[in-house]
Amino acid sequence: MQNIVIKTNPIDNVAIVANPTGLKRGAIVLDGVVFEEDIPMGHKVALKSLNEGDEVIRYGQIIGYANRLIEKGSWVNESNISMPQPPNLENISYVQPTVPQVEPLKNFTFQGFKNADGSVGTKNVLGITTSVQCVAGITNFIENKIRKELLPLYPNVDDVVAFNHSYGCGIAIDAPAAIIPIRTIKHIAKNPNFGGEIMIIGLGCEKLRPERLLPDDDGLRLRSASDTATERSRSILYLQDEQFEGFYEMVDGIMEMAEKHLQKLNQRKRETCSVVDLVVGMQCGGSDAFSGLTGNPVAGFAADLIVKGGGTVFFSEVTEVRDAIHLLVPRCESAEVAQKLKDEMAWYDNYLNQGQADRSANTTPGNKGGGLSNIVEKALGSVVKSGTSPIVDVVSPGEKVRKKGLNFVATPASDFACGTLQLAAGMNMHVFITGRGTPYGLNMVPVIKVSSNSKLANRWHDLIDFDAGPVAFGQKTIEEMGWELFRLILEIASGNKKVATDKLGLYNDLVLFNPGPLT
Amino acid sequence: MQNIVIKTNPIDNVAIVANPTGLKRGAIVLDGVVFEEDIPMGHKVALKSLNEGDEVIRYGQIIGYANRLIEKGSWVNESNISMPQPPNLENISYVQPTVPQVEPLKNFTFQGFKNADGSVGTKNVLGITTSVQCVAGITNFIENKIRKELLPLYPNVDDVVAFNHSYGCGIAIDAPAAIIPIRTIKHIAKNPNFGGEIMIIGLGCEKLRPERLLPDDDGLRLRSASDTATERSRSILYLQDEQFEGFYEMVDGIMEMAEKHLQKLNQRKRETCSVVDLVVGMQCGGSDAFSGLTGNPVAGFAADLIVKGGGTVFFSEVTEVRDAIHLLVPRCESAEVAQKLKDEMAWYDNYLNQGQADRSANTTPGNKGGGLSNIVEKALGSVVKSGTSPIVDVVSPGEKVRKKGLNFVATPASDFACGTLQLAAGMNMHVFITGRGTPYGLNMVPVIKVSSNSKLANRWHDLIDFDAGPVAFGQKTIEEMGWELFRLILEIASGNKKVATDKLGLYNDLVLFNPGPLT
Ligand SMILES: [Ca+2]
Ligand SMILES: [Ca+2]
Ligand SMILES: [Ca+2]
Ligand SMILES: [Ca+2]
Ligand SMILES: [Ca+2]
Repeated sequence: MQNIVIKTNPIDNVAIVANPTGLKRGAIVLDGVVFEEDIPMGHKVALKSLNEGDEVIRYGQIIGYANRLIEKGSWVNESNISMPQPPNLENISYVQPTVPQVEPLKNFTFQGFKNADGSVGTKNVLGITTSVQCVAGITNFIENKIRKELLPLYPNVDDVVAFNHSYGCGIAIDAPAAIIPIRTIKHIAKNPNFGGEIMIIGLGCEKLRPERLLPDDDGLRLRSASDTATERSRSILYLQDEQFEGFYEMVDGIMEMAEKHLQKLNQRKRETCSVVDLVVGMQCGGSDAFSGLTGNPVAGFAADLIVKGGGTVFFSEVTEVRDAIHLLVPRCESAEVAQKLKDEMAWYDNYLNQGQADRSANTTPGNKGGGLSNIVEKALGSVVKSGTSPIVDVVSPGEKVRKKGLNFVATPASDFACGTLQLAAGMNMHVFITGRGTPYGLNMVPVIKVSSNSKLANRWHDLIDFDAGPVAFGQKTIEEMGWELFRLILEIASGNKKVATDKLGLYNDLVLFNPGPLT
Repeated sequence: MQNIVIKTNPIDNVAIVANPTGLKRGAIVLDGVVFEEDIPMGHKVALKSLNEGDEVIRYGQIIGYANRLIEKGSWVNESNISMPQPPNLENISYVQPTVPQVEPLKNFTFQGFKNADGSVGTKNVLGITTSVQCVAGITNFIENKIRKELLPLYPNVDDVVAFNHSYGCGIAIDAPAAIIPIRTIKHIAKNPNFGGEIMIIGLGCEKLRPERLLPDDDGLRLRSASDTATERSRSILYLQDEQFEGFYEMVDGIMEMAEKHLQKLNQRKRETCSVVDLVVGMQCGGSDAFSGLTGNPVAGFAADLIVKGGGTVFFSEVTEVRDAIHLLVPRCESAEVAQKLKDEMAWYDNYLNQGQADRSANTTPGNKGGGLSNIVEKALGSVVKSGTSPIVDVVSPGEKVRKKGLNFVATPASDFACGTLQLAAGMNMHVFITGRGTPYGLNMVPVIKVSSNSKLANRWHDLIDFDAGPVAFGQKTIEEMGWELFRLILEIASGNKKVATDKLGLYNDLVLFNPGPLT
């Protein structure tokens, strides 16, 4: 195999080693750069000598400053570069961009479940949500019982999913930050894959009232002993309801309620839907230096195709956007959207500051091992998955998206907090890019796991859905692979193929983002 | 049934309605108090007329001030009493108490699993801990597989328990508050019920290194491709380990590791242990006005018996202790312990204040519905479960207890955060007192659920383990029921009887207390 290093922008003074076994001292690359030392795959080599204080440039951007002399051909990593300050939010001015005329993408469809509210499901799932952790033992019991005893009777229903979480009681429900977890739980119940047939299991004495979790104005009412049989088929059940004498009566009550919802869900049928109906959440986790070269650009190309087709895409992860904010503000559709984007950055700066941390706390040992020297380099590679479309809206944590097109959905970068908030935002497909490898899976929405390098994709043959590695060696172009990923999204959304975690039944817990205190 | 109201202290000017159906307007109680209005069970009646600004006294303590004229015989609740300021921590002085000579309790034993470190297990459990949520799908898969395929081969092992949590990555691991979740995870792995045979499943690129979770100095080493067969039986496994080609090789690797640990656990046998070996965590949740009259005093009596027997008891729940701190400081064994207790209160005051909340955020709609007007009244009833023994030590969140006797283990009152921190502190038995009813259960340690009223115990016949209700009507004394509870603790600790949640397999998630930010 030849010696390959990747330089993404003509002004870059570092390049990434692409060879899976790294490159050895003495290796020669590009226009005669000779390796001064062994450098592992994914790590950076200096393409010219850098003096102390010189800018280190990747993606055409300053990712740091040499903290000592770095000879041409040497390994550039977190030990010899110091990190720049984050872009000052006040100094980023906004100019309305001239949005280029884009040819709309037509004639691509998928088979989805159309809902009354206009949203479209990609799976047909009986959702059980909860107002408080107290009920989790019982909802787990019920989930198993429904899967075994009821699902076989309702063949059009794909699965039953209980949403247990740590919120609902023992929390400061009137603290300003409480709005985030509360609306997150409420909006998850509205995820398109549940088809509006959500059940809510509450305890009875908790602070978070189950009624607050109901979709607005949908006429659902509290179940009580005096309800008629019809009313008893409605959507809220309290374990403390005095009509239940012991555990098994609670179980019977829930099973009876579940059947009513399963009957309705079983009538759902897949119909032809257009790209307009896709709501795709993009996220990365366990990233390496290839993520910004292969997986994220391929995801970004697919994101642009979806937006061209009239669909919705979101990207998230505030701490991985913060250092690229000067590249994103100019892409906002209006000054108002630009301001909202900056406001979300400022909110998070303050949140981290209160906990005596900053965005530098984002990078992991795995990122560094994979060649990402700091959060600046990570962020520049991370935002690439947003593609090039204008940003039409910014959505605060736990809110639902309001507009089609490319949205920034503000979330922590933490994979499970981000995925949970993206579910609340209304995603019906999830694309997750990883370089180091994670078995990440969600039970509500299919997760397509994209590998940034073929080494991982080959080793984790049954855990990775899509290998973007060939881009690194020029075997395929970003455009080719972007189209492949786009077509895979349609296939999975149609239920024609299953993602790895759905085949294996590997699902993570959802994690609520609660910036407020416990009591 | 006669009209019963309960007054706990001679100076109280309110009493609690004990009749399950409440008492009606016109009812006559005590020395001729005539009810002015209907008052539900658990709620307070004024025993004399109170002018605006008058002290409302229960448990001999001020629980608030009348905010308007309250006529003798009227309903006293959160609408007509205003809350006092919390006791000022600076003003509570400490005087070394004369500890009364207590007759030690002898000749009570239970059958437990003795561990090398001197701790004693009450169950024999294969524990699987994790460094990060990323691995949760796989640990859930493994837990089921071990339960089905391996446990039948190791009959002395009671169960396998995977500890999934939301920490480990996407968190500010160097923030000052990070010490709490990290030491919590580490100390849970040392819980006596795991017998030191814990397995750790990590991903590989996460911030929280699995090595940090190992018990200190036990010689365990990282598993890697170059390990010998013996070393491969050790306790850490990374999913990203390059030796694993795909999911099923990871599964095989974990199963192989599990067998080594099961072989050792299977050799554990119950032996006669004394009360000295009990470590009992006391907690309440879903409390009502009876909690402080029946369940908590009975638990407190049992706590005193355990301490007299040389064992360890802890109580927790800072926000439910804060307003009774002036009663607890004088019980501290030394000035140093008293200062630590006040420091934990101050830390929590500040934590809540940062989130723009205070201790008044603790009470729930269920508490109020059950007759608890505010956090002061709730706290005065809550601390009763600590009994009357001297407080020998104060343990910060996530720390392990260091001393036998009565400890204050600082935790949120939030049931799952508290239970998780009590597991980390080393509890081998859990007593949980409830009035409104909660199916609370933990899979690591038996939870004895005590009902504060017989109405709940009768209705939830298969979810409640012990009914303290008879105390309310004088059918049994606190002393009698305290002894009954103490004997039940020994029975359950011996494995002779199972608690309700163990019979039904109802278990809640553990919830880590993480006061630090996500990234
Ligand atoms: Ca990311
Ligand atoms: Ca992420
Ligand atoms: Ca779970
Ligand atoms: Ca409590
Ligand atoms: Ca509690």
